[in-house]
Amino acid sequence: MPSQRDVDFKGYALTDPKRWNDLKITDFKPKTFDADDVEIAITHCGVCGSDVHTLTQGWGESKLPLIVGHEIVGTVTRVGDNVKDFKPGDRAGVGAQRGSCMSCRACKDGLENYCPNSIETYNAVYPDGVVAQGGYSTAIRAHEQFVFPIPDEIESRYAASMMCAGLTVFSPLKTHGCGPGKKVGIIGIGGLGHYAILWAKAMEAEVYAFTHDDSKVEDIKKMGADHVVNTGKKEFWKDYALTLDLIVSTRDSFGDKMPLGDFLSMLYVHGRFVTVGVPDADDPLPNLHPFNFVSNGCLMGGSKIGSKQDCLEMLELARSKGIKPWIEEMPMCDVGRALQNVQENKVRYRYVLTQDLA
Amino acid sequence: MPSQRDVDFKGYALTDPKRWNDLKITDFKPKTFDADDVEIAITHCGVCGSDVHTLTQGWGESKLPLIVGHEIVGTVTRVGDNVKDFKPGDRAGVGAQRGSCMSCRACKDGLENYCPNSIETYNAVYPDGVVAQGGYSTAIRAHEQFVFPIPDEIESRYAASMMCAGLTVFSPLKTHGCGPGKKVGIIGIGGLGHYAILWAKAMEAEVYAFTHDDSKVEDIKKMGADHVVNTGKKEFWKDYALTLDLIVSTRDSFGDKMPLGDFLSMLYVHGRFVTVGVPDADDPLPNLHPFNFVSNGCLMGGSKIGSKQDCLEMLELARSKGIKPWIEEMPMCDVGRALQNVQENKVRYRYVLTQDLA
Repeated sequence: MPSQRDVDFKGYALTDPKRWNDLKITDFKPKTFDADDVEIAITHCGVCGSDVHTLTQGWGESKLPLIVGHEIVGTVTRVGDNVKDFKPGDRAGVGAQRGSCMSCRACKDGLENYCPNSIETYNAVYPDGVVAQGGYSTAIRAHEQFVFPIPDEIESRYAASMMCAGLTVFSPLKTHGCGPGKKVGIIGIGGLGHYAILWAKAMEAEVYAFTHDDSKVEDIKKMGADHVVNTGKKEFWKDYALTLDLIVSTRDSFGDKMPLGDFLSMLYVHGRFVTVGVPDADDPLPNLHPFNFVSNGCLMGGSKIGSKQDCLEMLELARSKGIKPWIEEMPMCDVGRALQNVQENKVRYRYVLTQDLA
Repeated sequence: MPSQRDVDFKGYALTDPKRWNDLKITDFKPKTFDADDVEIAITHCGVCGSDVHTLTQGWGESKLPLIVGHEIVGTVTRVGDNVKDFKPGDRAGVGAQRGSCMSCRACKDGLENYCPNSIETYNAVYPDGVVAQGGYSTAIRAHEQFVFPIPDEIESRYAASMMCAGLTVFSPLKTHGCGPGKKVGIIGIGGLGHYAILWAKAMEAEVYAFTHDDSKVEDIKKMGADHVVNTGKKEFWKDYALTLDLIVSTRDSFGDKMPLGDFLSMLYVHGRFVTVGVPDADDPLPNLHPFNFVSNGCLMGGSKIGSKQDCLEMLELARSKGIKPWIEEMPMCDVGRALQNVQENKVRYRYVLTQDLA
């Protein structure tokens, strides 16, 4: 068993909100180490759209300095006395959540991702005042419930973006019945959407990918989608009225142009439209009328990352079926460029930063 | 077996949209009689909010002359050659739907209430051009699939409003898991909402009734609600955050004041808010943001009347548990007053018109 080793806590931090992607190497104070905690030396961290929303202050003012990043994989360096499932040297991951109350109804039901006292991986404040700093950094400490063991068969570079992007779409697919015989639509084929195609196919659904970007069509077919629908086509929804059992939308901007009511019209009776994308606070959903829900008895909802149980099932699916995300690796010092490309929707389909500070 | 008898088809019709509740006795041409049809001499017809929306042209222009009413109970007078389950003399009911294509996926799945070629009980046009006229009248003909046998133990005056008001709330309660151990909220305690309380209690759920009308509180308790919440109280939702498994909303007007996001916040993880109320076309849902759905993974949807299977289960529940709606009877000639009181929300809790033309 490898011995514990000391870790320098530093990362690429936002220091000036006006220069949202010009991050500065900054030392930070880690979470106070508790008996339930696992400390991980980070080797890889994915770049998520949430990082952009947070850095650009689209979801409200952030702490400063702030290190974002919540698609973390690395090697365990230290475990608390209560930790049973990890030991130093293990590979482990952390996603968008690093703590919860562990005592409410949701936590007890294994739905800890919906705990109202959830501690997000970055931009949260622990009860003792320490600011939670994310994964564009050397190391992280998190409660064991929010640390996920990475199967030997899954390389760290592939596992990293599963921790948020992968899990965020796996959870609603599982919760809302994706499986054999089901027709599942995926809106927005970016980091999350490409995972949604990979998972939904692995779960043996018939997959309808919706994109406005013709340049992605060949990629989407290679990912395994059975149908690719160009949402730029006039009245594209008409051919699919009352067809889909489930739609997972990864769009993180809506605006008036999003034909949400028309997407709902593609759902079969009691079908569900689930958004995992969360736009900026000033970008609400398009106006709807009960007519949009009553004609097919459909439902619209949301989903927030996933539980540990969801994550373990996702990793097992990826392991057993050899699923690899479509990623591009770059050293962590290139994070500014990665963020810019994510904001401009140029990423194909996820950036993974590799450690260069430790 | 009683012999077939001739029926004069006449009813109380809208002839001038400017005088929406001043209905005139008018003869009408019935649906062409088909082999699958059941003809019913109407003895009772409930007065539904839909009748008001249609007469006031709130859901769009209506045919003229038009006879509304779709909570119909009466005595079978004639059956087509294909009809197996009814014979003249039987008591039978018709709700808000009188036909469908019988061949689409929804019809084949026993979800014929969602058939995209559904024929509504009034204001629809049959393929041969005959206008469907409703139940403020002497008689109706409908496809057997949309005719419901009334159990001996349920009086016609009680069965009438079950055909739409009762079924419309029973269907989402059943579909979305109302039952023992579930916490179910009901918004709007009028004709539909009072049925929702009666059914949800009969299904052994814990019932939370939401009303802004203090004068109804005692009634609501007598109906069996476990909790009555006054929505006029400031931040009434705060005490119920993450509590309810299902909310059925019977409101048929929303407007900016409806705190829809706050209602959603009362749902437990993956809880569902289902509206059965359909406001006028110019009264959309209040603006929402994905934040409203993501924090608890909740869903919002709609529901449209119910299937024949739903109706049979509802009638069996009413029969076996002796459930009686809270109604007020009046002769059909008083329909103008009944409609006025429904529009002004003065009805406690459903009007049932009794035949005076035949």
